[in-house]
Amino acid sequence: MALTGDLLIGGATRHGTAGDIHGLDAATGEKLEPAFGAAGPDDLEKACALAAEAFPIFRETDLEARAVFLETIAQNIMDIGDELVQRCVTETGLPQARVEGERGRTVGQLRLFAATVREGSFLEARIDPAMPDRKPMPRVDLRLRNVAVGPVAVFGASNFPLAFSVAGGDTASALAAGCPVVVKAHSAHPGTSELVGKAVQKAVKDCGLHEGVFSMLFGSGRVIGQGLVADPRIKAVGFTGSRSGGTALMATAAARSEPIPVYAEMSSINPVVLLGGALAARGEAIGKAFVGSLTMGAGQFCTNPGLILAIDGEGLESFVKGASAALGEAPAATMLTPGIHEAYCEGVKRLDGHSQVQKLAEGKVGEKFQGQAALFSTKAADFLANPELQEEVFGSTSLIVRCADEAELQKVLGSVEGQLTIALHMEEGDHDDARKLLPVLEEKAGRILVNGFGTGVEVAPAMVHGGPFPATSDGRSTSVGTLAIARFLRPVSYQDMPDALLPKALQEANPLNVPRRIDGKLG
Amino acid sequence: MALTGDLLIGGATRHGTAGDIHGLDAATGEKLEPAFGAAGPDDLEKACALAAEAFPIFRETDLEARAVFLETIAQNIMDIGDELVQRCVTETGLPQARVEGERGRTVGQLRLFAATVREGSFLEARIDPAMPDRKPMPRVDLRLRNVAVGPVAVFGASNFPLAFSVAGGDTASALAAGCPVVVKAHSAHPGTSELVGKAVQKAVKDCGLHEGVFSMLFGSGRVIGQGLVADPRIKAVGFTGSRSGGTALMATAAARSEPIPVYAEMSSINPVVLLGGALAARGEAIGKAFVGSLTMGAGQFCTNPGLILAIDGEGLESFVKGASAALGEAPAATMLTPGIHEAYCEGVKRLDGHSQVQKLAEGKVGEKFQGQAALFSTKAADFLANPELQEEVFGSTSLIVRCADEAELQKVLGSVEGQLTIALHMEEGDHDDARKLLPVLEEKAGRILVNGFGTGVEVAPAMVHGGPFPATSDGRSTSVGTLAIARFLRPVSYQDMPDALLPKALQEANPLNVPRRIDGKLG
Repeated sequence: MALTGDLLIGGATRHGTAGDIHGLDAATGEKLEPAFGAAGPDDLEKACALAAEAFPIFRETDLEARAVFLETIAQNIMDIGDELVQRCVTETGLPQARVEGERGRTVGQLRLFAATVREGSFLEARIDPAMPDRKPMPRVDLRLRNVAVGPVAVFGASNFPLAFSVAGGDTASALAAGCPVVVKAHSAHPGTSELVGKAVQKAVKDCGLHEGVFSMLFGSGRVIGQGLVADPRIKAVGFTGSRSGGTALMATAAARSEPIPVYAEMSSINPVVLLGGALAARGEAIGKAFVGSLTMGAGQFCTNPGLILAIDGEGLESFVKGASAALGEAPAATMLTPGIHEAYCEGVKRLDGHSQVQKLAEGKVGEKFQGQAALFSTKAADFLANPELQEEVFGSTSLIVRCADEAELQKVLGSVEGQLTIALHMEEGDHDDARKLLPVLEEKAGRILVNGFGTGVEVAPAMVHGGPFPATSDGRSTSVGTLAIARFLRPVSYQDMPDALLPKALQEANPLNVPRRIDGKLG
Repeated sequence: MALTGDLLIGGATRHGTAGDIHGLDAATGEKLEPAFGAAGPDDLEKACALAAEAFPIFRETDLEARAVFLETIAQNIMDIGDELVQRCVTETGLPQARVEGERGRTVGQLRLFAATVREGSFLEARIDPAMPDRKPMPRVDLRLRNVAVGPVAVFGASNFPLAFSVAGGDTASALAAGCPVVVKAHSAHPGTSELVGKAVQKAVKDCGLHEGVFSMLFGSGRVIGQGLVADPRIKAVGFTGSRSGGTALMATAAARSEPIPVYAEMSSINPVVLLGGALAARGEAIGKAFVGSLTMGAGQFCTNPGLILAIDGEGLESFVKGASAALGEAPAATMLTPGIHEAYCEGVKRLDGHSQVQKLAEGKVGEKFQGQAALFSTKAADFLANPELQEEVFGSTSLIVRCADEAELQKVLGSVEGQLTIALHMEEGDHDDARKLLPVLEEKAGRILVNGFGTGVEVAPAMVHGGPFPATSDGRSTSVGTLAIARFLRPVSYQDMPDALLPKALQEANPLNVPRRIDGKLG
């Protein structure tokens, strides 16, 4: 399929006229063809108008039809075949195996949401039957279900060109909820976006849905991104990206005459706590495994382990030894964009030049746009005194914080901002220490994991990929896993509504056969 | 019990020194004794520090212990006896029967949340067992539960001195979730607040909980209210009050270095749609019933019917006839505060003086601080052209909007802001018309009710007392009913955590016996 560089506005394609956007070959920095036409205000207007038009129809699609739609998107993405993988590899510099894996994750995610839609628990159907004889007042008949919030703006992420972009987790969960989606494609992988966008557009047509269910725009964050969030027809936002980008969208959403929720997944350094027993038993091995997680995907994961906490001593030295040796062998890897590479180099330089930070080890030097992994160390007291050491360096760099004792370790944990993940490495003898840490870990992170690293986020019902600010804008939510659908729903209650007018999920005969809570009890 | 006018800070009492606050006799405007000492920054600091200290302990209380605590609060409130009712009647001007009813609702609410806590579904426990043999990658063991978000600031409401104040719905649901609560008592009923506050404080002691679980402050909204929302230890806010008050808190919360959710229930005019068949069959009777809802509690309900929509004609005239006759007999009623009374009179005057609005009927003239009910009428075209006619007039005034036809009725509904409730009056012959309206009603309101009025909010699992902005700040939530607990929870996921370290709700043996979703399926 030849790329056209067109915007996808409902069922139509149109070449944007507000400037040209080019993908770049991540490895060389060279411009890729074709030029993608940036959207202007008219394109934004049209996409939002279509989404608003589609909304009342799409949100009431049969669950089965909606599930089939999600599965059709998945199939259409697979049907693009190798062209998608190749374009994505070129635009992002990610290895082919990673891109193929991410494609599998993306279509798996769509299929998981299809299953979630069919199962129907997300509707949260509740029925409190009338009690006409209750004293002193009769009780009315009350029935509750979730409805979709409205059209959703989704921002493609640079670091997940498939799984968190055009048809990624935000789009999949919003569509599953019954919300039309307007995507702002990430300018770092426009060709990948066009291919996937057309697969979604085709699925809308294949399934006979209203064309406004999906649109995709190229354009600048300042104009099209902010414009989308400000548009009164948009009712929620899904975003994965930088802290500055996410907080800018939060500010715009809060300043609307009708404020809307922004689900921004932004900034996390994912502390890894190494307990004494684990360090004594296998410090060197943990160090080696850590480098595997640190350098995976050039460290460009939201869950990259950017902070290591441990009590100083022999055990930590064996970890450093293992990590340093592994790092010395770690090849440099092409980063997603020249801009990300530059920011990474600056971040490393800042750490390297910090008077309270020592460099422990480095990975291999690489080509022009490749990131060189690095491991630094500082003392807990210095970490506490220098809040800038908490700032995320996006890439494969990590900082060891050497604590004098358990109290200092607690203090450092208490000082870190909200996180997506915190990992604990432990042996059975460490359980008492771990137990003391758990309360603060639960307050700080959305996911706590044992003897592993945060990279590798399972798409599953019990996953939380979210966490207190600034890990996400809204720590009550997850952007990965089936619970992500809850972000795009709101409850509506029906009182004394005749059965014939009730939505199917709440009709007496339960024609959709969805789980329902009757009088507070699960049926 | 003699009132002291003291702040309740944890287990202690202290007389605030930042100025005096007096309750007023609502009927006469006379100052009531004693003086209540307003809190200063030190009191705020102490209350928040205690709440933060209590949080990690309180959020992990046994479900049974937490349920007993809620029931103890309920019992302690009942044990105050008639003193509470009398003081509340004096401070609010509400009739004794209403205050007694509201007390019943308040303790019923606490007991319902106790049952909700015991049942355990609110924990949303999910378990995805490990699959060590899965290809290409083994699956980790993942378990999810909800945890409390942290200390919550609750603002007492003027119009529900018991059910939405010191131990009202926000406090009950926050405590049920495991969040310590710092209440800013409403200055309109400080004596009622002290009595209830001491009942809660005593329950904390009776149950042997950390004293920081509950504090109550008197003070100004600008200093103590905004100060609470800005305090970094406060993690969520519950508020019922004016649109200006709610949006001011939202702005403060959004401007924090760690933004937090504000659940503000603010402004709703609760449209009532009268369909043709219903008007033809019983227009006059609906008019009479409407006046009952309109004048209940001097119209001081969030769900008061402030807007009537119908297609102009004979049927509507019979409604007007019934309503006018009933209104003529409606006695004036003392309003909650002189300030609310003054704002009501101004609102009525604004409508009365509006060139596109006609006065149809009035209630009886009353005493000094009593509100006189009123019914106005305007044409749909004028309503659409004058957005100020949508502004809530808090009290027993309503505006009939006469529509030329179905299309105009749809247009008016499309133009109204988010609402708590929308009511439909209909006969079977109106079903087709109702079906066409339902999509817009679902987009505009949290509760849709048939052949009734929004006043009288059942506290039940299927209740939604919330709605799109500006009805509430967050239309994804409800402040009444068991689902209100969800506002104060966030999910945490545990990966490969040894059973001995898992929270009880997620341990293999399910010692709490809570409902759990295993591999996505309800157990």
